[in-house]
Amino acid sequence: MSERIRDLAHLSHVELLTPRFDESLSYFVDILGMEPSGESGDSVFLRAFGDYERASLKLTAAPHAGLGHLAYRTHSREALERRVAALEAAGAGGEWHDGDVGHGRAYTFRDPDGHLLELFYESERVDPPPHLRPALKNQPLRYPGRGVGVRHLDHINLLAVEPGEQREFLEPLLGLRLTEQIVLDDGSEAGVWLASNQKSYDLTYTRDATGTHGRLHHIAYFVDQREDVLRAADIFLEYGVVMESGPHKHAIQQTFFLYTWEPGGNRVEICAGGYLIFDPAHEPVVWSQAERAKGQAWGMQTVPSFHIKGSPSVPQEEELLAAH
Amino acid sequence: MSERIRDLAHLSHVELLTPRFDESLSYFVDILGMEPSGESGDSVFLRAFGDYERASLKLTAAPHAGLGHLAYRTHSREALERRVAALEAAGAGGEWHDGDVGHGRAYTFRDPDGHLLELFYESERVDPPPHLRPALKNQPLRYPGRGVGVRHLDHINLLAVEPGEQREFLEPLLGLRLTEQIVLDDGSEAGVWLASNQKSYDLTYTRDATGTHGRLHHIAYFVDQREDVLRAADIFLEYGVVMESGPHKHAIQQTFFLYTWEPGGNRVEICAGGYLIFDPAHEPVVWSQAERAKGQAWGMQTVPSFHIKGSPSVPQEEELLAAH
Amino acid sequence: MSERIRDLAHLSHVELLTPRFDESLSYFVDILGMEPSGESGDSVFLRAFGDYERASLKLTAAPHAGLGHLAYRTHSREALERRVAALEAAGAGGEWHDGDVGHGRAYTFRDPDGHLLELFYESERVDPPPHLRPALKNQPLRYPGRGVGVRHLDHINLLAVEPGEQREFLEPLLGLRLTEQIVLDDGSEAGVWLASNQKSYDLTYTRDATGTHGRLHHIAYFVDQREDVLRAADIFLEYGVVMESGPHKHAIQQTFFLYTWEPGGNRVEICAGGYLIFDPAHEPVVWSQAERAKGQAWGMQTVPSFHIKGSPSVPQEEELLAAH
Amino acid sequence: MSERIRDLAHLSHVELLTPRFDESLSYFVDILGMEPSGESGDSVFLRAFGDYERASLKLTAAPHAGLGHLAYRTHSREALERRVAALEAAGAGGEWHDGDVGHGRAYTFRDPDGHLLELFYESERVDPPPHLRPALKNQPLRYPGRGVGVRHLDHINLLAVEPGEQREFLEPLLGLRLTEQIVLDDGSEAGVWLASNQKSYDLTYTRDATGTHGRLHHIAYFVDQREDVLRAADIFLEYGVVMESGPHKHAIQQTFFLYTWEPGGNRVEICAGGYLIFDPAHEPVVWSQAERAKGQAWGMQTVPSFHIKGSPSVPQEEELLAAH
Repeated sequence: MSERIRDLAHLSHVELLTPRFDESLSYFVDILGMEPSGESGDSVFLRAFGDYERASLKLTAAPHAGLGHLAYRTHSREALERRVAALEAAGAGGEWHDGDVGHGRAYTFRDPDGHLLELFYESERVDPPPHLRPALKNQPLRYPGRGVGVRHLDHINLLAVEPGEQREFLEPLLGLRLTEQIVLDDGSEAGVWLASNQKSYDLTYTRDATGTHGRLHHIAYFVDQREDVLRAADIFLEYGVVMESGPHKHAIQQTFFLYTWEPGGNRVEICAGGYLIFDPAHEPVVWSQAERAKGQAWGMQTVPSFHIKGSPSVPQEEELLAAH
Repeated sequence: MSERIRDLAHLSHVELLTPRFDESLSYFVDILGMEPSGESGDSVFLRAFGDYERASLKLTAAPHAGLGHLAYRTHSREALERRVAALEAAGAGGEWHDGDVGHGRAYTFRDPDGHLLELFYESERVDPPPHLRPALKNQPLRYPGRGVGVRHLDHINLLAVEPGEQREFLEPLLGLRLTEQIVLDDGSEAGVWLASNQKSYDLTYTRDATGTHGRLHHIAYFVDQREDVLRAADIFLEYGVVMESGPHKHAIQQTFFLYTWEPGGNRVEICAGGYLIFDPAHEPVVWSQAERAKGQAWGMQTVPSFHIKGSPSVPQEEELLAAH
Repeated sequence: MSERIRDLAHLSHVELLTPRFDESLSYFVDILGMEPSGESGDSVFLRAFGDYERASLKLTAAPHAGLGHLAYRTHSREALERRVAALEAAGAGGEWHDGDVGHGRAYTFRDPDGHLLELFYESERVDPPPHLRPALKNQPLRYPGRGVGVRHLDHINLLAVEPGEQREFLEPLLGLRLTEQIVLDDGSEAGVWLASNQKSYDLTYTRDATGTHGRLHHIAYFVDQREDVLRAADIFLEYGVVMESGPHKHAIQQTFFLYTWEPGGNRVEICAGGYLIFDPAHEPVVWSQAERAKGQAWGMQTVPSFHIKGSPSVPQEEELLAAH
Repeated sequence: MSERIRDLAHLSHVELLTPRFDESLSYFVDILGMEPSGESGDSVFLRAFGDYERASLKLTAAPHAGLGHLAYRTHSREALERRVAALEAAGAGGEWHDGDVGHGRAYTFRDPDGHLLELFYESERVDPPPHLRPALKNQPLRYPGRGVGVRHLDHINLLAVEPGEQREFLEPLLGLRLTEQIVLDDGSEAGVWLASNQKSYDLTYTRDATGTHGRLHHIAYFVDQREDVLRAADIFLEYGVVMESGPHKHAIQQTFFLYTWEPGGNRVEICAGGYLIFDPAHEPVVWSQAERAKGQAWGMQTVPSFHIKGSPSVPQEEELLAAH
């Protein structure tokens, strides 16, 4: 058996669309504690104090909420070329473009459900301005001491009509590995957790209950301590941010989570904990329909909206919620 | 045996003198996350989000650092009158004045070491302005999400040439009770911890190694979690605030502590933990000279400056430090 | 206006009835980390590492779950006599008995809803056996490092058909003070939080939805950190202990909570946080029906069983649950 | 430029020698909360609840403390063969042996300073016995709720006369990458931090102040929360375990640390925090002699023993300590 493909280094950034740009920007800057790091057209770029790249978030004014694109950085230029060649050989090719604020030449393509993905290698390193210089030189930016103080982009969860198809597409072509999975009694996959590295996941697909293609479930920013998530809840409460679910601990992946809605209509998770995968031959953990029905790790039942709503919002959501 | 005097409700506020007023103010507002709540003459009044009174700190511009005064609120008007009568009967009387920003008629007097103490009962309740209104009505102010985010004034530690004399003065006259104590081999008291209520202390006297009268060792603000103290250290690091000692856990009182120097030259502690005293007949815990020499709870030796420096600074401090 | 009565020192202990004695004992010893400290008849006495008295829990074998009695310690012998005189003058008197393991002569009586309450002053101080001796002499017992590691008994929540009547009875006769309260649109009180000291509550009454008298909602043990509650949830998960609700933060009292069912059928809370009341003239915080309907502090809706079930269990519970 | 070698998956286990075997075993089982998982000759094998392999620690009775060997697991059989070929081509070859409890065929060799290193790929997966089965299937073992409750082996720190030589040896031959480094004013390397994966280090060499070869500075076990480290200190205090330094935060690597001495004379660290390295082109962070002299992150000066003592102990240690 040949060795596993390991060409993707990590989830690099996400482009989020928002119809309420100023309020969304304030959510990420004032409440989460991120820093603006660039602008271009209708977009502002942002980074958290532990993001080593220029941006982990591209916030773009748009008529409705949702995903613009997500991007992985590869391990090398050669790794980038290999992945592009594999995509094109599979008839799943996209196109090269010249790059964006913070990174160089990039290749974009679509997953089977229609989300836009991007690969690149060349990443810009920018010295922080004096007021953002950290006291410890092994830290990208100064810890803000403002709001939640998120450390780095952790993962993205996309909705798809058939999560299993996305997995079948991405495993061989990008070398993402499946680490956990929900397999229903009919054999279909209700959720797949994929990882590019030792974090136990950075890309998740869960089933879109509305049957819509190309939607976003949430993006997640990491904090170091579970207590930081609790403190985040205290802050969201004061700011009137809608908390949909949590703080609680997921059974799957064991992430300690808190889900909020940013003002533009995208779900944003603050998370801590989870685990690293050291085993190079790690076998995916498979959860059955019955196991999934047990709720979260400590017994909390997830609210219906969590299984139904995504961005952009679609009319079927209200019908499904009413049926609960 | 007669019942214990319980006329003092709690440590209410402290007046701190600073020769670098603007920087000190920024320390309390921007770094600790407190809110200005009034002004008078050369003073600004401040409160933390959990302080129910208008002010727990009066910051006053002055030629040198140190204590202005400290104030206890009594349980009632009658309790105030009883304490004043006791002081005057003991020949330790002071004088009435009309009150200050946040409180009414008050009585000031001096402890044997010369610190200025104040008693009052009438306390002003002010509704917070809209931007400081808390989401939960059982909280005095909105949690700031800015800097350390201290909750309330916790205690004050004064330096005295003879801590035991202060205890002998305050126990019968104010009804403060001794909860922990360091008794040296020669029988003298190197430190006394006094409490007005179920918190295990709110007023401490420790021996002034320089032999000077009337100095301050530190004031302390409380945070809820030990993790909040660690996070405070991360914030102080970024702001360049001098951390003298900690985070660590005291053996005496078990407080989890971090000592800093505010820019004006007063020591300020961020603390968490400790314990409540429920026992109405609690016996003081006595630490011997040998026990005290063991250092803090987990073995850290306290730095020499902690045992020598106070505010205002005096020349003898440098001689003593040099002798170490 | 006369000064407030302050004769009760603190909630001392609770007697819990259990039809599954061995399993209940294991819950408190192995999972919560408490220590057996005495036996008598069908009862075992237990204390947590921060309980200064010989026992905070009397666990008694019985045909069904529920409250045996709860006990307050008074501030002095005189305070005990004063409260007994007040009860008897009000025609609410009970009877003296000789005491129990850990305390002396005591007076028992019933609240209007029929719960058995006890008052005493003389409390036994027992030196811990060598293997339970703490490293720090200001701590009652060694920290166990076993299971949850609860610190001390925090509060008890009784069910009553009319919580307001209990408050009207206990405020003047025991001097407990009301700190928070739910007042419904019809003016009735759905919940009252009472305090004997600076902890913001130690005795709560909430309405019994089944209309039954004399039942228990839960008892609560305190841990120092919110993280300790999260860790408790991890431990309960491994032990298969049923977690009914939480970890989450109450809006009322701001307690960070986790509710479990001990094997005998009594609800036990692990709690942290909350706040102290320093204000001697503290005004009760009143929550309206609409405010109460908003759920817990961070938006979680409480599960129906929390508002319906108590101990002992009664048949009406299932009907009410089915109606949800 | 060719792509970086990535053949090592992770630090797998450490063999520790102890002249007080039973006490050392009790330290790891009763105090740290690890589980025995096998025996062989004079050795017992142990794993923590998050270690996916059969053992992360081989504890071996021996006349003196110190390192037996350390082992890395490779990404594949081919990766193992490649590393052995590289070692042999460099004249640094060792020898194959048949494996040990928990793993298959392995290759042992020595670093230039004389420590014994091992490489292997085949790792045994053992189902936990019923009483150790976790509630969540994505966790190797049940969380113990006993003692510190360490999660997994985190890293090892070896002493070497010339740390830089070890780095020059291991970077090209094993593909470990340098992430942080202390370079003294004379250009020599006082410390090198090496990583096999996205954890920012798993193998460290620091200079042996005594000039002795082949010694161990410490091994480290990971806990999830900084609060877990503080709680560990509370537990060590009760057990009388010697805490040499901490809890505090390292400037280098930002690890939150607590150093203890296990009864056999080896230093064991409990750590949390730190950071992951996502950047595939990460540049080593270089600390100068002056920067290093500043002490730990929050200002604590490290105790002299930390820079002098290792295992096994050597007579020069006392001379150097006396010189401080």
